Amino acid sequence: MFYHVKETQYRAKPADGSDPAYARKLQEILGGQFGEMSVMMQYLFQGWNCRGPAKYKDMLLDIGTEEIGHVEMLSYMIAQLLESFPEDQEAAVKSGSMVGEVLKGHKPSETMMAAAFNPQHFIANGLGAAPNDSNGYPWVGRYIISSGNLLADFRANLNAESQGRLQAVRMYELATDSGVRDMLHFMIARDTMHQNQWMAAIEDIIAEGLDGTPCPFNFPLEKEMQEVSGQFWNHSRGTESAEGAWAQGERPDGLGQFTYLASPTPLGDEPVLGPVAPSVHGTAKMPVPPSTDETKPYLG
Amino acid sequence: MFYHVKETQYRAKPADGSDPAYARKLQEILGGQFGEMSVMMQYLFQGWNCRGPAKYKDMLLDIGTEEIGHVEMLSYMIAQLLESFPEDQEAAVKSGSMVGEVLKGHKPSETMMAAAFNPQHFIANGLGAAPNDSNGYPWVGRYIISSGNLLADFRANLNAESQGRLQAVRMYELATDSGVRDMLHFMIARDTMHQNQWMAAIEDIIAEGLDGTPCPFNFPLEKEMQEVSGQFWNHSRGTESAEGAWAQGERPDGLGQFTYLASPTPLGDEPVLGPVAPSVHGTAKMPVPPSTDETKPYLG
Amino acid sequence: MFYHVKETQYRAKPADGSDPAYARKLQEILGGQFGEMSVMMQYLFQGWNCRGPAKYKDMLLDIGTEEIGHVEMLSYMIAQLLESFPEDQEAAVKSGSMVGEVLKGHKPSETMMAAAFNPQHFIANGLGAAPNDSNGYPWVGRYIISSGNLLADFRANLNAESQGRLQAVRMYELATDSGVRDMLHFMIARDTMHQNQWMAAIEDIIAEGLDGTPCPFNFPLEKEMQEVSGQFWNHSRGTESAEGAWAQGERPDGLGQFTYLASPTPLGDEPVLGPVAPSVHGTAKMPVPPSTDETKPYLG
Amino acid sequence: MFYHVKETQYRAKPADGSDPAYARKLQEILGGQFGEMSVMMQYLFQGWNCRGPAKYKDMLLDIGTEEIGHVEMLSYMIAQLLESFPEDQEAAVKSGSMVGEVLKGHKPSETMMAAAFNPQHFIANGLGAAPNDSNGYPWVGRYIISSGNLLADFRANLNAESQGRLQAVRMYELATDSGVRDMLHFMIARDTMHQNQWMAAIEDIIAEGLDGTPCPFNFPLEKEMQEVSGQFWNHSRGTESAEGAWAQGERPDGLGQFTYLASPTPLGDEPVLGPVAPSVHGTAKMPVPPSTDETKPYLG
Amino acid sequence: MFYHVKETQYRAKPADGSDPAYARKLQEILGGQFGEMSVMMQYLFQGWNCRGPAKYKDMLLDIGTEEIGHVEMLSYMIAQLLESFPEDQEAAVKSGSMVGEVLKGHKPSETMMAAAFNPQHFIANGLGAAPNDSNGYPWVGRYIISSGNLLADFRANLNAESQGRLQAVRMYELATDSGVRDMLHFMIARDTMHQNQWMAAIEDIIAEGLDGTPCPFNFPLEKEMQEVSGQFWNHSRGTESAEGAWAQGERPDGLGQFTYLASPTPLGDEPVLGPVAPSVHGTAKMPVPPSTDETKPYLG
Amino acid sequence: MFYHVKETQYRAKPADGSDPAYARKLQEILGGQFGEMSVMMQYLFQGWNCRGPAKYKDMLLDIGTEEIGHVEMLSYMIAQLLESFPEDQEAAVKSGSMVGEVLKGHKPSETMMAAAFNPQHFIANGLGAAPNDSNGYPWVGRYIISSGNLLADFRANLNAESQGRLQAVRMYELATDSGVRDMLHFMIARDTMHQNQWMAAIEDIIAEGLDGTPCPFNFPLEKEMQEVSGQFWNHSRGTESAEGAWAQGERPDGLGQFTYLASPTPLGDEPVLGPVAPSVHGTAKMPVPPSTDETKPYLG
Repeated sequence: MFYHVKETQYRAKPADGSDPAYARKLQEILGGQFGEMSVMMQYLFQGWNCRGPAKYKDMLLDIGTEEIGHVEMLSYMIAQLLESFPEDQEAAVKSGSMVGEVLKGHKPSETMMAAAFNPQHFIANGLGAAPNDSNGYPWVGRYIISSGNLLADFRANLNAESQGRLQAVRMYELATDSGVRDMLHFMIARDTMHQNQWMAAIEDIIAEGLDGTPCPFNFPLEKEMQEVSGQFWNHSRGTESAEGAWAQGERPDGLGQFTYLASPTPLGDEPVLGPVAPSVHGTAKMPVPPSTDETKPYLG
Repeated sequence: MFYHVKETQYRAKPADGSDPAYARKLQEILGGQFGEMSVMMQYLFQGWNCRGPAKYKDMLLDIGTEEIGHVEMLSYMIAQLLESFPEDQEAAVKSGSMVGEVLKGHKPSETMMAAAFNPQHFIANGLGAAPNDSNGYPWVGRYIISSGNLLADFRANLNAESQGRLQAVRMYELATDSGVRDMLHFMIARDTMHQNQWMAAIEDIIAEGLDGTPCPFNFPLEKEMQEVSGQFWNHSRGTESAEGAWAQGERPDGLGQFTYLASPTPLGDEPVLGPVAPSVHGTAKMPVPPSTDETKPYLG
Repeated sequence: MFYHVKETQYRAKPADGSDPAYARKLQEILGGQFGEMSVMMQYLFQGWNCRGPAKYKDMLLDIGTEEIGHVEMLSYMIAQLLESFPEDQEAAVKSGSMVGEVLKGHKPSETMMAAAFNPQHFIANGLGAAPNDSNGYPWVGRYIISSGNLLADFRANLNAESQGRLQAVRMYELATDSGVRDMLHFMIARDTMHQNQWMAAIEDIIAEGLDGTPCPFNFPLEKEMQEVSGQFWNHSRGTESAEGAWAQGERPDGLGQFTYLASPTPLGDEPVLGPVAPSVHGTAKMPVPPSTDETKPYLG
Repeated sequence: MFYHVKETQYRAKPADGSDPAYARKLQEILGGQFGEMSVMMQYLFQGWNCRGPAKYKDMLLDIGTEEIGHVEMLSYMIAQLLESFPEDQEAAVKSGSMVGEVLKGHKPSETMMAAAFNPQHFIANGLGAAPNDSNGYPWVGRYIISSGNLLADFRANLNAESQGRLQAVRMYELATDSGVRDMLHFMIARDTMHQNQWMAAIEDIIAEGLDGTPCPFNFPLEKEMQEVSGQFWNHSRGTESAEGAWAQGERPDGLGQFTYLASPTPLGDEPVLGPVAPSVHGTAKMPVPPSTDETKPYLG
Repeated sequence: MFYHVKETQYRAKPADGSDPAYARKLQEILGGQFGEMSVMMQYLFQGWNCRGPAKYKDMLLDIGTEEIGHVEMLSYMIAQLLESFPEDQEAAVKSGSMVGEVLKGHKPSETMMAAAFNPQHFIANGLGAAPNDSNGYPWVGRYIISSGNLLADFRANLNAESQGRLQAVRMYELATDSGVRDMLHFMIARDTMHQNQWMAAIEDIIAEGLDGTPCPFNFPLEKEMQEVSGQFWNHSRGTESAEGAWAQGERPDGLGQFTYLASPTPLGDEPVLGPVAPSVHGTAKMPVPPSTDETKPYLG
Repeated sequence: MFYHVKETQYRAKPADGSDPAYARKLQEILGGQFGEMSVMMQYLFQGWNCRGPAKYKDMLLDIGTEEIGHVEMLSYMIAQLLESFPEDQEAAVKSGSMVGEVLKGHKPSETMMAAAFNPQHFIANGLGAAPNDSNGYPWVGRYIISSGNLLADFRANLNAESQGRLQAVRMYELATDSGVRDMLHFMIARDTMHQNQWMAAIEDIIAEGLDGTPCPFNFPLEKEMQEVSGQFWNHSRGTESAEGAWAQGERPDGLGQFTYLASPTPLGDEPVLGPVAPSVHGTAKMPVPPSTDETKPYLG
């Protein structure tokens, strides 16, 4: 069960007024593939589904709950960045600025979108945030994973926080508003924490003897074809790929050496599919010959 | 540019004939979120977009090309598992087996789906594979990431191979056909290789001084709010989460210590959104009062 | 900012052990179009975007926070309904029951899906809940609306609670497990509360003079074509539709009478589209004549 | 069975020539979540699925048929708004206008999109309308509902006409072309009619004794947990939500009083999930210990 | 503008009562990729966007309007096939039939899904049709095309009617109900008509000199690289592909001969991407070296 | 199994540096409905599922493999078109050009999107290509078909190459960069080849006696309702549609004559759906009357 307080985890207020074009882009880290909605839902579902020791479950729900607050901060920020639109544009026209001059000669519909804002922010959301990315594509449940295996999921989480911090940093580069940067410099730091957190959690789960590499470690190794589990197959002409740490030396899982297969060849034959029942109406069997009038059936 | 040979990377042939219900489930590791189509497209796009040293680009395209062959193997296997359907069912009815007895009394439409196959395998695909998961949901481009940052992407790849191997192992557990298990024991081993490969690639990229944790490392640390970049915030009542490696001791990035914030409180105020222009037709401003006839407007 | 306590809002525990087929169906009211994820996200976004009086914003965030707890309850319930699978099926086979007899003769893959469970619950989620509906289709952000107009949104909410309660009632009818029914009898009651709540909120917003019917009421009525704003147009042959309250008498908005247009005819002409630039490569303009060899171009 | 006449229900012709940026936005009320395609398909499916009295079915099919004509009007309008593109832009450049000056210096590709049009209108649709919203996201069947319960569905319809009219009004505000506004002033009036219609239909269905609040009314009230069906739970710190009509006084369904629960606490315990079978390869059980070589497995 | 009559284009009534499993599958040709909703929307949009001669536009709207009636027939059929569910199953249990025996021992939730019906037909749609395919995946606007080029679109239509007839034929094979087969034998015949219709329309448009192969024919042939426009490139080892009509002889467009390139080689070089700005935070540039503490940054 | 060489099938290099707005649009023919990813996946799946003669299977895998190389070329081109962004814009500002003047006065966020680029190209992809269309909508598996019937599929392929060539030609019209046009003039020529190829393949399959029109030809014609398989039904008022080749004369399948039904009438009755079980909680049955307090239940 959850509770809410009205203050936000950190400040979420623009310093310079509205900027609907930036608001559009900021949607990426709210409702995009690696936005805050994704980590929020991913951590909550992993926590609710957790069958492991209590410390993992509690930790997952802690951070999942924190992330709801990040979605909240971004929503507030976006709503404020949209706030004085479209009045800003009217002001630009009246001021006689260069931008205003350009806008002035246009039809209003063109004027309003000269700023490349997301039209749904106005038409559908009335200047509020939405669960979408920067192209207006909606958040979907297929973005997240709760696999029932914590090591696999902690790797998913480390990836999410890496992609997420990368995107937040890029949003920082795109920003000039000091209030936006203030909020982002908090969120980027939390992403730093969370990258560290998942690394530590991966160490922790291995130290507890609960899993290992290859994950899932509790699948008997003798059931996999071990002669190919250390081979790098060179599928491109040229061997630059032989220069990396993945092509030689000890494997990170400590179970053997990497080898480099410079000219891989197929281990299987060409499959030949068999015929199917007539009720499938495929191509192979044709009980009734088509028209023999050759001039007719040729019309593709 | 790509070339094809007709033999498959490894054998892909069922030993015991058709099993359309298993074919349905096998679609998960072909066209699901973490199926072979995902790693194939993810590695190819990362390779094509690669601006880093040639060894990374070549390696990405090697493995991406290998994965096309995995999609190929799964497609052949699924087409064969569907092959003698629906004749198997007719045979069961004729044989008088217990299953046949049950099917016999049913309408044909029920009979055919008693095996819980995917109806599209028959209706739309004519007993062939499709780019869908085990629920018939199509593969989508949003499953993959090519971020332009190799460390972030290698973490995505390690996650993909962990989730992917976990799913392949579960498919192995669900299988009894020795031909299916033969193919899977090869694919699981390749997943082991690829988990190791991405770990080695992560080591490699750090050893080359190209990136580090927190990723992206080339964002100046002083621009993030460093006082919160090591804090664990306890958002759930109870402190089981304090017992993990993420709540104390040195951070994996080597940049400081973890601390545990047992009772986190907001650092921001409650945001209050301002009014918007009348053209938005929101709720706050109402220049024209609604009908004063109290009995009418109440009809929600 | 949000907080979590580990206890659930109400009990969420099955009485009779696992039932993976019911778990599949229960996903509908978790991640379906009108599931708890939809009301949770809809109310939270409406609250964060709210520019109206504080009582509305606070109320929206209260109920949005409550709904996170409903998603939590359903997730726990689903994870438990999946728990002893696939051991239940092995037990059925061993017990020699009629069901066991049927399953026994089947291949394991068929056996496991004889229960019509969702294969992703096993393969992708390791016997946990997921943000999907009963067909495995993921929750999408386009399910919800936060329009910036509270009257419109409260009507959306009343609809969501009506469809939601209807679906919960149907799930109750499908259930036999007393623990499942116990949880549902709580959730159905909350849906009753929430239907009432949105009705009261609609009354409240009209009583405050903030909006009315037609919504949005602050669009000047003289700008709409008022001569057709009370007409029912009979587009089907037959006039049964004339018998309803929408075809005669006073309009609910108090602004006039309904009239019944038995034989509507077009008020506009047939539009004729003009030609477009040659660079569009449409059909209308053909500067270069196609082959005059009549036997060739006919190949469609 | 359906018939078509070539004239449109109302005029659909722009007065001032093409405006591809407005055409992009106009797609929202054609193929968006609450566009005309949604009400068209929603009413038609509700009509075809209707098991209630004939007046409801006939009415649903009347309005569903009318809405096909609204999709038609919008399609014609969009095709005309796109018509003289890209020639308009070439004219602007030649005229030496301020806009033309800006466009002149650009590459053609930038020029053409300076107007923020939807690139698919040119590339995929050849200057015609498409079943998409203003961000190019396609219409999806999950937008609509036909639940088999008419009261629930009429509430869905009232919501659709409220959101729809709100969006049409916003499109009116964005428009300057008198022909566009002429068409919209007709469509907005029809939305007014349809809001009234669904209100009247809700009254009608209750007057007929066919349903009521809470919907569905034919679920025995004693099966729901009536002690919580009138309680408002305050999940946010602060009690502004106590000031609304939903927190006190008689419930709209006439079945009791609202009460305000200022400090709600959980009624359930913390669920603890049990272990699962080894074949799931989750985290809890680990028959084979991972490598004891501590330097190896730590590679996350 | 459209009109409706209550009778259906052809009979749509099952002879043998309900069959919810068949109803699920029948959704494929209602709301699937090549279902009737697709041709309905495709022909209507092509008609509304048509800038060609009136005969094409009128024809497109004729058939588009006919297809609305096909969606109608399928909706009615599905609603009837669902009608007596779940009472049929109770009857089976009471009758003591073999199927009943199996169902009897099951939990009700398993019983109800033993028939592999679509759970949303009960939970969400109350035993009515929905705009989904046989896996419950919703119809999406991306299924259709209206390109502004009639020859391209008529080829799309010929494809749609070919895939559509193929699927209808397969549904016929799956059916035993004589009423279902009666309806399908009408719809299959209409598909035959429509295949012929689009072939004739392709001939017509070429005979009118409006387009040709390669389509669009009004793109000057000298702008394409004509030396490769007749070459078959053999990308697979082995030359079975040389045996087809596409590898030798005159091209169908009459513009030259096919040639067979047995060993194709690249005509381009390997692209090498350049560096990007530091604000992208990619991998290539790393102004700040990562931690030199070798034991730390290795945690992937 | 597949192999890769690093050179591209043809040159893919822009001549004039970056053009992020064009890069956005170019995504349409990479990851759009009829982009290269669609033909690549369509031909590969058709090849893997092929049960017909070897020449068809080999040919399908040849062209499918070729198309991977087309996706590769487009990816490289897009990555290069994005390459010097955002430095180009800074240069424009510094140069004092008219465009620079306009950009100078703007906030950076507006500046960067003044070029109408896709924000995800920067935020999510770090200036690389992605499997999306020109509106950022992801490629989905539902775009393609592999039906198990080669004639139907070759028609799908002919359509794909027609729409694909049309879109490539439009991209050519939008381009000014000579390197872009060079690449497109190669791809357009390949589309010409592939249109011819599928026409020849259609001829070939009919010449082999494997199928015909109506497709699938192996469904006995006497099972379809042959009296309507040649009728054109005129569903629109007016008879312009009688003027086409589809309304008179011999049918292309050679099986009869077209006839024109000027005034089609329904052949079926109005379906009347029956009542359903009370557990459905529909509208028809209402065992418990709703509140008789007339002032209450009216709140919709």
